[in-house]
Amino acid sequence: MSGSEKGRARVPTGIAGLDEMLGGGFPAGHVVLVTGLPGTGKTCLGLQFLMAGVAAGEKGVFLSLEEDVAPLLETARQFRWPVDAALSSGLLKVLRIDPKETRQSLHRIQGELGKELTALGGRRIVVDSVSLLNMLSDDESGRRTTLFALAAACREGGATTVLTAEADPIHPEVSRDGLSEYVADGVVLLGYRTGTDGHRVGLALRVLKMRRTSHVRTVQPYSIGPAGIAVDAKAVDFGGA
Amino acid sequence: MSGSEKGRARVPTGIAGLDEMLGGGFPAGHVVLVTGLPGTGKTCLGLQFLMAGVAAGEKGVFLSLEEDVAPLLETARQFRWPVDAALSSGLLKVLRIDPKETRQSLHRIQGELGKELTALGGRRIVVDSVSLLNMLSDDESGRRTTLFALAAACREGGATTVLTAEADPIHPEVSRDGLSEYVADGVVLLGYRTGTDGHRVGLALRVLKMRRTSHVRTVQPYSIGPAGIAVDAKAVDFGGA
Amino acid sequence: MSGSEKGRARVPTGIAGLDEMLGGGFPAGHVVLVTGLPGTGKTCLGLQFLMAGVAAGEKGVFLSLEEDVAPLLETARQFRWPVDAALSSGLLKVLRIDPKETRQSLHRIQGELGKELTALGGRRIVVDSVSLLNMLSDDESGRRTTLFALAAACREGGATTVLTAEADPIHPEVSRDGLSEYVADGVVLLGYRTGTDGHRVGLALRVLKMRRTSHVRTVQPYSIGPAGIAVDAKAVDFGGA
Amino acid sequence: MSGSEKGRARVPTGIAGLDEMLGGGFPAGHVVLVTGLPGTGKTCLGLQFLMAGVAAGEKGVFLSLEEDVAPLLETARQFRWPVDAALSSGLLKVLRIDPKETRQSLHRIQGELGKELTALGGRRIVVDSVSLLNMLSDDESGRRTTLFALAAACREGGATTVLTAEADPIHPEVSRDGLSEYVADGVVLLGYRTGTDGHRVGLALRVLKMRRTSHVRTVQPYSIGPAGIAVDAKAVDFGGA
Amino acid sequence: MSGSEKGRARVPTGIAGLDEMLGGGFPAGHVVLVTGLPGTGKTCLGLQFLMAGVAAGEKGVFLSLEEDVAPLLETARQFRWPVDAALSSGLLKVLRIDPKETRQSLHRIQGELGKELTALGGRRIVVDSVSLLNMLSDDESGRRTTLFALAAACREGGATTVLTAEADPIHPEVSRDGLSEYVADGVVLLGYRTGTDGHRVGLALRVLKMRRTSHVRTVQPYSIGPAGIAVDAKAVDFGGA
Amino acid sequence: MSGSEKGRARVPTGIAGLDEMLGGGFPAGHVVLVTGLPGTGKTCLGLQFLMAGVAAGEKGVFLSLEEDVAPLLETARQFRWPVDAALSSGLLKVLRIDPKETRQSLHRIQGELGKELTALGGRRIVVDSVSLLNMLSDDESGRRTTLFALAAACREGGATTVLTAEADPIHPEVSRDGLSEYVADGVVLLGYRTGTDGHRVGLALRVLKMRRTSHVRTVQPYSIGPAGIAVDAKAVDFGGA
Repeated sequence: MSGSEKGRARVPTGIAGLDEMLGGGFPAGHVVLVTGLPGTGKTCLGLQFLMAGVAAGEKGVFLSLEEDVAPLLETARQFRWPVDAALSSGLLKVLRIDPKETRQSLHRIQGELGKELTALGGRRIVVDSVSLLNMLSDDESGRRTTLFALAAACREGGATTVLTAEADPIHPEVSRDGLSEYVADGVVLLGYRTGTDGHRVGLALRVLKMRRTSHVRTVQPYSIGPAGIAVDAKAVDFGGA
Repeated sequence: MSGSEKGRARVPTGIAGLDEMLGGGFPAGHVVLVTGLPGTGKTCLGLQFLMAGVAAGEKGVFLSLEEDVAPLLETARQFRWPVDAALSSGLLKVLRIDPKETRQSLHRIQGELGKELTALGGRRIVVDSVSLLNMLSDDESGRRTTLFALAAACREGGATTVLTAEADPIHPEVSRDGLSEYVADGVVLLGYRTGTDGHRVGLALRVLKMRRTSHVRTVQPYSIGPAGIAVDAKAVDFGGA
Repeated sequence: MSGSEKGRARVPTGIAGLDEMLGGGFPAGHVVLVTGLPGTGKTCLGLQFLMAGVAAGEKGVFLSLEEDVAPLLETARQFRWPVDAALSSGLLKVLRIDPKETRQSLHRIQGELGKELTALGGRRIVVDSVSLLNMLSDDESGRRTTLFALAAACREGGATTVLTAEADPIHPEVSRDGLSEYVADGVVLLGYRTGTDGHRVGLALRVLKMRRTSHVRTVQPYSIGPAGIAVDAKAVDFGGA
Repeated sequence: MSGSEKGRARVPTGIAGLDEMLGGGFPAGHVVLVTGLPGTGKTCLGLQFLMAGVAAGEKGVFLSLEEDVAPLLETARQFRWPVDAALSSGLLKVLRIDPKETRQSLHRIQGELGKELTALGGRRIVVDSVSLLNMLSDDESGRRTTLFALAAACREGGATTVLTAEADPIHPEVSRDGLSEYVADGVVLLGYRTGTDGHRVGLALRVLKMRRTSHVRTVQPYSIGPAGIAVDAKAVDFGGA
Repeated sequence: MSGSEKGRARVPTGIAGLDEMLGGGFPAGHVVLVTGLPGTGKTCLGLQFLMAGVAAGEKGVFLSLEEDVAPLLETARQFRWPVDAALSSGLLKVLRIDPKETRQSLHRIQGELGKELTALGGRRIVVDSVSLLNMLSDDESGRRTTLFALAAACREGGATTVLTAEADPIHPEVSRDGLSEYVADGVVLLGYRTGTDGHRVGLALRVLKMRRTSHVRTVQPYSIGPAGIAVDAKAVDFGGA
Repeated sequence: MSGSEKGRARVPTGIAGLDEMLGGGFPAGHVVLVTGLPGTGKTCLGLQFLMAGVAAGEKGVFLSLEEDVAPLLETARQFRWPVDAALSSGLLKVLRIDPKETRQSLHRIQGELGKELTALGGRRIVVDSVSLLNMLSDDESGRRTTLFALAAACREGGATTVLTAEADPIHPEVSRDGLSEYVADGVVLLGYRTGTDGHRVGLALRVLKMRRTSHVRTVQPYSIGPAGIAVDAKAVDFGGA
């Protein structure tokens, strides 16, 4: 669809098959929500997205609410991604927001985080995961304010952002907080595909929404291998997920 | 049905197939709710509705609660709609209400917005989306008051209005707030149609309700292409959505 | 069933097929709840019920919480019902209770409304819709009190009353407030019938309850045409709805 | 089952087929809950139970929370039951508790009602319906207290009692308040039976529980005719309801 | 399984088929939860368990929250169990905790009940039912505290205990309070088995959990006859319940 | 997958089939959540994990919130595991946190527990079960804080940890608190597999998530025998659970 494929520059995701589904990558400047059940590879997708930028000389920032920095880097090393070189060269920054430090974390997100991210100059940002923002506030209102503030901070410097979110365990096509979809320009859903007997037979993803671009709406299988996530964009639509 | 097709003047929607389903367009002066899951084209339908008016020399107002003005216009440009000319000529106005500015936004909606819209002289109004009104109030009562005030403001000047709303992710035939249906004269549901195997095989819409006119009750397929939404009003009812 | 068909005088509903299902009409003095999803013709049924009275020289009162008077009358005119003549002759009265005017509306319903209705001398009353009463109160207790007061006001003058109510969108066999069924002597459910493939293939209604009369329990198809609602009481039971 | 059929004297229900299912009637002194959706004949069953007592010279008390006395008696007259003679002779008493008179009703139920019922000397009591007790209290705790007090008042004089209750509209095998089952010695469920195609094809009842007696657990069809409820205890189990 | 069948002494349940499923009975000292819908025989199972102890010369205590003592004993007499002899000989004690006496009952459960039970020297205890404990407290926290205190009181003297609990009417595989499973060493579920057409065709039970013993996991049919509950442990697994 | 199988040292689980599914065991230092319905063997898995460490000369700590120490040890003895020797040699420690002692338990978990565990020098820790932590706090916020504090305490000394959790009875693929999945690096789900007729035909487990390692995603049958849990990692995927 020519009309929509012009518009914005694209930011390759580091996953060839996903780029193909999206017509080249995420539209530049988008905030994209990646939701999925535990174990579907959300953190992996986020790291892979950043490392694709690093390989192209783009600065990236990983904002971790879920894991400490050390185990996170270990994950990246297992995929043989050059995280240590990226850290040394300054192309990769890892920030940690500890959801146990409620007051301090809220203050940072609603205050300086935008400038902090802009100062770091990241062209790509990953926040892993927004689900843990809920732990910072006790009421719905506080959660919304925090989520909006986080998204605004990410957008402030013009970066392209991936927010990961836990899927609702009962209705996995929705994020656990039910709000993250509101702040995102796009939603990528990681899930399972099921065989004709209803059994899970592998992983599959779907692009639910992507503003300002046409995109494939089919369900495509993917795997998490030693080099990260690989999407088979050619497979016939499985329909499930 | 001759009895109902007389009554009111019709406002063509800019989507030929939808006009056909409605007997010519939305009844003039109606407030029509357009609900759908993320990625089903609600914003696109709203813009297309306004640009159809612009093409006919009618003033239109886009009231954006969801996106900033710049990315919104970019979306319109991608469909090659002459938004810039429309803005220059004054036929298109874009207003922004930022849900993060709670107090200020509430004050505007419950106060001056009606006069503001009347002064702009828009014959068509789009509010994208009413789902974000919920973010302005913390209690059910405040949400209702705000929603009613918004609808009243839109009706004040006699314009025909499209309100977009997120569908409830679990029960997508209902709006997320469960209230928007109350203030609307009509409801158009954007969704998916499913094949005999239960898999989503494309987009489809249905007119759930349209006061003061008879309308088709079938489910018709549509697509979002480079020229916007196109509805196939001739296709056999798919039943799903 | 002879035992039950004697008892009360019947009030023909203006819909021949429905009268047939009920053994002649609503029992005189009953408060009958008409529930249905948006677009199933609740307001139409209410107007048709009043106009059937007008045609027989009976006074009727339409109490509108949902729409303003002008669009409501327009609806009636589209069905070519002589509302203007009825208004001129005093056989039809339209009262408006605006749910935005919370305090004033509550005061009226819980205070003078009964006398007001009695003074008007309406033999038939329609309240469209009781669902909007919920907007007047913030707590369950207030909602119940208001609903009971409204029903008492309608009963005060001995009229036969139709209350319309939104069906619960998820469980459409129940009213949205889950309370209206308590105050009613009868419940008529407007809904959809589904084909063997589960697809909606048309409108259908069912009499769920009607005190002091036997009634058909089957699901009968109906349509909304240029002359209003027509029920096919002869069709074989569709079972659905 | 000889062991259980001795124990208690039985109180015939006035419905031969139901007596057959229960081995002769309700066990004397039991509080039996009759639940069902609107229109399944709960009030009719209650009246029929009292009139069976009247026919045998036993005093009965009908405690009405739902309807006023006049329409209630009209219902009984339509079944050609000699309510007027019963009222004149003092064998039938009708008490009205108005759920709109919150304070006064609560005071009566929690205070004098037991003595009142004992003084009346009713051997059979019907309370129609306990669902409306919920309207008297705003919190769960108050509802429980009221329900327990009502049951205690009914038990105080040793009568056999029928409590009617609305079934939960979504899960009709449960009472609407979810509590009434706790205070009852027996539960009779009035519902619908469904054909092989899932469609409702008639009324059917089931005895869910009956302390101190063995009972049939099958689902038996019944009808509401000019002489009241008739249960076909010989029909093969339909399983549904 | 030899490893697990040694461990603890077994307490025969009085139901031969259930003993067979459990490898001899409940493990001595266990607190076993028996859940089921109304009418599935929970009280009967509890009485049968106590009377099996009485027959073996073991003291038993029945703690009744649900029924008064008189009707409870009547139930036991109908099964021709020698409750009167057991009461005279002191082998059976019946305690009554009235859920209407909130303050007093709470005080007893959280205070002296453990010593009281120990003083009585019961080797078997039945509490019928823990569901009514919920009536004693208005908040979740109070309910938990009370339930833990009750279980602790039962364990204090080393007896083997049966707690009966209402099953959740919507999800009958769970107790109504959703907490009782936490305090129990074992769970026996009383329910219905369904035929291939989905209809209930009889009663069936399953041992969901039994600490420190292996146990059959199949669903076995049972009946409630004149001599109490009889379980058919030889029947092929029905799967349902 | 060579990339991921290097990374971390593995901690054999004591269950050969599970080790095979995980590529050698739990990654060292992980916090692994084991969820399942009552009776699926969660406590057994935890004990087996500790005793495998003991057999290899590694210290283990069992933190019991659910059972007292004596019955817990009895369980282990029934599996003929040398718990007494392990206790004597100091290789096994059992700590008891009593959920009834709210204040004291909270104080310990949020205060000294980390140091306590580090001082004990356990290389393996089992917490049985985190579901009972919910009993310590009345609000969501307190529950989260406690759960995070417990996980932090376990991680403090570098041990590999198993947290057991009750599965949600209605949606057994989720833990009862819906939070435990957040703090865990891995999730093992214990459940039932169902035959083609939908009946439970045995136990089966699945590894839902395991950070920093590839793992089998299939559903594998297991049994609880006299030597503990045995997983058949070779069986064809059953899909269910």
